[in-house]
Amino acid sequence: MVVELISVGTEILMGNIINTNAAYLAEQCVRLGLNCYYQDVVGDNEERLSATLKMALDRSDVVILSGGLGPTPDDLTKEVAAKVAGLNLYMDEESKAAIADYFVKIGKEPTNNNWKQAMMPVGSVIFPNHNGTAPGCAIKTGEKSIILLPGPPEELKLMFEESVVPYLTEKMPSAIFSKTVKICGIGESRAATMIADLIDKQTNPTIATYAKTGEVHIRVSAKAEDIATAKKLAKPMVKELKEIFGNYIYTTDDDVTLEKAVVDLLIANDLTVGTVESCTGGMVASRLINVPGVSDAFKSGVVTYSNKAKRKFVGVKKTTLDKYGAVSSQTATEMAKGLSAVNKADVVIATTGIAGPDGGTEDKPVGLVYIACQVCGKVTVKECHFTGNRQKIRENTVVSALNLMRECILEYYSEKTFR
Amino acid sequence: MVVELISVGTEILMGNIINTNAAYLAEQCVRLGLNCYYQDVVGDNEERLSATLKMALDRSDVVILSGGLGPTPDDLTKEVAAKVAGLNLYMDEESKAAIADYFVKIGKEPTNNNWKQAMMPVGSVIFPNHNGTAPGCAIKTGEKSIILLPGPPEELKLMFEESVVPYLTEKMPSAIFSKTVKICGIGESRAATMIADLIDKQTNPTIATYAKTGEVHIRVSAKAEDIATAKKLAKPMVKELKEIFGNYIYTTDDDVTLEKAVVDLLIANDLTVGTVESCTGGMVASRLINVPGVSDAFKSGVVTYSNKAKRKFVGVKKTTLDKYGAVSSQTATEMAKGLSAVNKADVVIATTGIAGPDGGTEDKPVGLVYIACQVCGKVTVKECHFTGNRQKIRENTVVSALNLMRECILEYYSEKTFR
Repeated sequence: MVVELISVGTEILMGNIINTNAAYLAEQCVRLGLNCYYQDVVGDNEERLSATLKMALDRSDVVILSGGLGPTPDDLTKEVAAKVAGLNLYMDEESKAAIADYFVKIGKEPTNNNWKQAMMPVGSVIFPNHNGTAPGCAIKTGEKSIILLPGPPEELKLMFEESVVPYLTEKMPSAIFSKTVKICGIGESRAATMIADLIDKQTNPTIATYAKTGEVHIRVSAKAEDIATAKKLAKPMVKELKEIFGNYIYTTDDDVTLEKAVVDLLIANDLTVGTVESCTGGMVASRLINVPGVSDAFKSGVVTYSNKAKRKFVGVKKTTLDKYGAVSSQTATEMAKGLSAVNKADVVIATTGIAGPDGGTEDKPVGLVYIACQVCGKVTVKECHFTGNRQKIRENTVVSALNLMRECILEYYSEKTFR
Repeated sequence: MVVELISVGTEILMGNIINTNAAYLAEQCVRLGLNCYYQDVVGDNEERLSATLKMALDRSDVVILSGGLGPTPDDLTKEVAAKVAGLNLYMDEESKAAIADYFVKIGKEPTNNNWKQAMMPVGSVIFPNHNGTAPGCAIKTGEKSIILLPGPPEELKLMFEESVVPYLTEKMPSAIFSKTVKICGIGESRAATMIADLIDKQTNPTIATYAKTGEVHIRVSAKAEDIATAKKLAKPMVKELKEIFGNYIYTTDDDVTLEKAVVDLLIANDLTVGTVESCTGGMVASRLINVPGVSDAFKSGVVTYSNKAKRKFVGVKKTTLDKYGAVSSQTATEMAKGLSAVNKADVVIATTGIAGPDGGTEDKPVGLVYIACQVCGKVTVKECHFTGNRQKIRENTVVSALNLMRECILEYYSEKTFR
């Protein structure tokens, strides 16, 4: 089954916003086993939208339109789609009541325009919107389907999960089960080489690698007549990947991020954590604190960007800074040890590096970063050489720091077990 | 003149990467005065790419393709474009030499595949690539132009600025000058209301508002026969906006971000800065440290997520925490004063709030945030109520914190002047 995505909105055409909806929808459709050959962006213009939709219906089985379901007169996606499908709109009382409820919930008054959002194409399957006012829907036209979704990402995503996945799954001739193996600590090309023979001989399940900042995600997808069989098909491949990548894998759970994996590991082992950051300037702490519930583990963090702060807050010795410099294995080590002395955190992560654009020398070029991790007294230091601009170097440092924490904690406990 | 953007790449179609190139190119084209009615995404597939390009040439004057200029056999954008335009490819010796030079520069060996990247369509205008190996080019076909750009964003952006802007500017019947007035501290709808009459009566220059996280950007664009005249046309409108928005404007410079404006203000006034962060967990420090050269101003930051850390690092009193709670104006004030006592920073910004999803109460709901800013002893506290998820609340807090610093510094110096 072939799907096509049409994003409707002048703000995307003008480059005012980045089309994250298309990336989200595309990834979800791949996961469901749909093929996608085209994505289109068109403005809130009846003629051009109509032409694009007709073309899409001509070459694809399912067309998903996002955006243009708002209350104002320039929002015309639903009107155009109904016209193309030869359907009238009617006032859907259930949707109208839901809109009224939504306004009560947020403590605001609906405007007269809002009721336009409850006008639905006759015979359509209606998708309720639990994060906003505009319902979505699916329209059948001949053998083809048109799916309409609201533009705001939090509305679109929830509606897709709640309503579109079941709608499309039912239409699919076979069930798809997919699992993502997330790895950190090796690059995409090395990861791909390590599974080259699996990639070569793949049939069902299929495997695909996705490069993320400092991470590689490997998606295993199996197709079968039902989901239980698909799951069973995927299982041996996931097991094989686990054997190949071992501790490089930080999760096989789609909802777990690297920082969540680290925080889970901390909490499971009853460990507290602290951060000492120079070049990353708070980004490591910020990633950890993005995990709800981190307050059980996070003791405190310091941003010691200047040498003075490194001495004052975490007691790095002046002689160390003079002899080895702020960007050195020795300084990183003292930063990690120093915070632990102050705040008694079990795990401390420290970063110091040259993020550029200035400040590099022949000996210590831009991109040189030292990361130190202290776990219950034992310090491990990693020397990294990153490329790219200031932001990229800092982002890569954060990922490496989070992963070093993970590795050091795992190592600490595996050594303890062997003792 | 109408432009159409075609992004080529299976990784975009599969949702593996977000199409930031299209947003960048669209914004740049609008800035140049081009109209854009369609954007397309198509995979590395000869037939579909060829059909999409032909359709685009049919309905637009300039078609910009990005991606698919790599060295591997699936990269076929250039081959398809040449075929559509009826042109052969030739080995361009200058491009070949540039590729060889590039490999010397990065200390790697080219593969045989790389020379394919120097094969160019006969008669094309070649755009050198200073951030990678694949040159871009412009092909004339009848009255229409096809522009080919490499996919990696840092290569595409530099090439667009260096080569495509002059190429397109020359083609344009009129010159465009645009200036962005960036404001912070008022929402988009209020900003739009404040300039409703300007928007209604706009002709040349035009004005358009763009909502960013916590910010509004107003783009003023003037069209004239030459750039000097266009500049002159834009000037009174920019002046009027300055009068309307006053200190809400943090810059009229495209390259200046909010954090850069704050750091510039600090450095210009010889002020040092420190951060004390609870709910933002290092994000304010991280934004400040993203500005190259901040080391002259940044003293240190602390992430005091727990009550213990608030007491230990910045001396918040136990009685204050017991009586008013960690999320209170009083605690925020003591956080800001406390760090200043420790690190002697002239300016200290402190954040404490409930980012959710848990932790909210009826009195103190999720989204309640206090931000305190201390400038040379004077503390200002702002109470904020943000909506959205944890990440959104934290991002909005960061923007408000940066803006509060800006406002407090400006106020401090204006009061000093009046004294």
